[in-house]
Amino acid sequence: MSQAQTKPYLTLEEAIKIADAAQAKSTAEGWNMVIAILDDGGHLVSLRKMDGVQTGSIDVALGKAKTSVFFKRPSKAFEDMMKADGGGRISTLPNVVAIEGGLPIFKDGVLVGAIGISGATSAQDGLVAAAALEAMD
Amino acid sequence: MSQAQTKPYLTLEEAIKIADAAQAKSTAEGWNMVIAILDDGGHLVSLRKMDGVQTGSIDVALGKAKTSVFFKRPSKAFEDMMKADGGGRISTLPNVVAIEGGLPIFKDGVLVGAIGISGATSAQDGLVAAAALEAMD
Amino acid sequence: MSQAQTKPYLTLEEAIKIADAAQAKSTAEGWNMVIAILDDGGHLVSLRKMDGVQTGSIDVALGKAKTSVFFKRPSKAFEDMMKADGGGRISTLPNVVAIEGGLPIFKDGVLVGAIGISGATSAQDGLVAAAALEAMD
Amino acid sequence: MSQAQTKPYLTLEEAIKIADAAQAKSTAEGWNMVIAILDDGGHLVSLRKMDGVQTGSIDVALGKAKTSVFFKRPSKAFEDMMKADGGGRISTLPNVVAIEGGLPIFKDGVLVGAIGISGATSAQDGLVAAAALEAMD
Repeated sequence: MSQAQTKPYLTLEEAIKIADAAQAKSTAEGWNMVIAILDDGGHLVSLRKMDGVQTGSIDVALGKAKTSVFFKRPSKAFEDMMKADGGGRISTLPNVVAIEGGLPIFKDGVLVGAIGISGATSAQDGLVAAAALEAMD
Repeated sequence: MSQAQTKPYLTLEEAIKIADAAQAKSTAEGWNMVIAILDDGGHLVSLRKMDGVQTGSIDVALGKAKTSVFFKRPSKAFEDMMKADGGGRISTLPNVVAIEGGLPIFKDGVLVGAIGISGATSAQDGLVAAAALEAMD
Repeated sequence: MSQAQTKPYLTLEEAIKIADAAQAKSTAEGWNMVIAILDDGGHLVSLRKMDGVQTGSIDVALGKAKTSVFFKRPSKAFEDMMKADGGGRISTLPNVVAIEGGLPIFKDGVLVGAIGISGATSAQDGLVAAAALEAMD
Repeated sequence: MSQAQTKPYLTLEEAIKIADAAQAKSTAEGWNMVIAILDDGGHLVSLRKMDGVQTGSIDVALGKAKTSVFFKRPSKAFEDMMKADGGGRISTLPNVVAIEGGLPIFKDGVLVGAIGISGATSAQDGLVAAAALEAMD
């Protein structure tokens, strides 16, 4: 009897739990955010835009999440690289938004997707992303 | 004293109520769907992709919703036009997905956004979209 | 003494005269339209979107005008070809919106741009485009 | 009796008044400009390209205006951020043209659109944009 190789994936139920946590943290802090959650192919599983958030934050949140799923790391990692070397080099990387607020999502050590947050300062975006992923624990 | 010209808009709370209704209808029927809700500028307010839906349905749902918000009518209207006249003409219209499953959302007779559903047959997609909008009543 | 080869071009003043005529005709008929005027390279010289016109008409008007300047003929010419042969062939042509409402603009027999109208039925769009170009006489 | 949530919007009449003011200022200074005005969804309401302006300025003006409507701030805000920190980070933001000449348009404190100017130096572009918005007072 053959045994297929399998990988875990992010369910909608999990994505909604993460998005709920992100929205609760944002509301508690008085921030309005776009909350984007992608699967391991970089495709949307869940998105919410809270009232009054600037339209530009939709693509920024999507871009941060895509950065994290395409490169398996926080989007802040590229922001830090830029600060170290002036940044030009990194700005030519396809599919990178080099701003804090994107985090990869792992299950059992395997990448299953990413979250991207935009709407406040990038440090605040990062706080909400981190708080949201605690819902996965 | 000046008087601004105003128009209504779609809140996240309303969008989530609509998405919940779409998801409930889909679950009741045993269908898995992508549920996309856009504002009156064609920008995302809410998206959910139920487990196992084909990746292609994300852009189909977005395209149907964009069709409805850009042209203030059900995406099925273009499907019907195509059947009536052979269809070539309609296939050259920019931003049109001429398949049932997109519906405009009105408040007090003013367009505030649209819903797009994809994942099952287009007739089933249309049923879910219609059921979802009953949550606005 | 050398003599450069020259070609006439569409001035903003002329484009505004044409747009004014299109807007006057639309208002007289009770139609709201997008009025797009392109130069001979297919680039915008003038655009107006009357209040309440569906957002989708912007790209449709631009597409009809681009069709007329790229192919030096009314966009209706492609609509007629489609009716003659079923249309599939024409729908694969790049940069063609095969719907009435786009007309090329000539000065001294030389193509200088095009107008595209969208917002009502395609026949009404075509009437407004034709009325607008009379302002060039 | 239901009460819709409402927001103000930009009329074509207002957009033309703003564009007229931008064109008058440009003419007075001897500059030729592209003048682009978008609604709150980032879609065109009015565009004018004065005679002789480089073709590239069309997309620059559109990009500056989109930056301002998508991020609810002058496009110069991003130019300043770039100068402050080396800029790489900002260059990865989607939908941002980080050059002076784009300004958001507000009515009663609510974003209703934006203006983008391009054709001269960015400082001159910014002067024309600012002069144009005085027509809203």
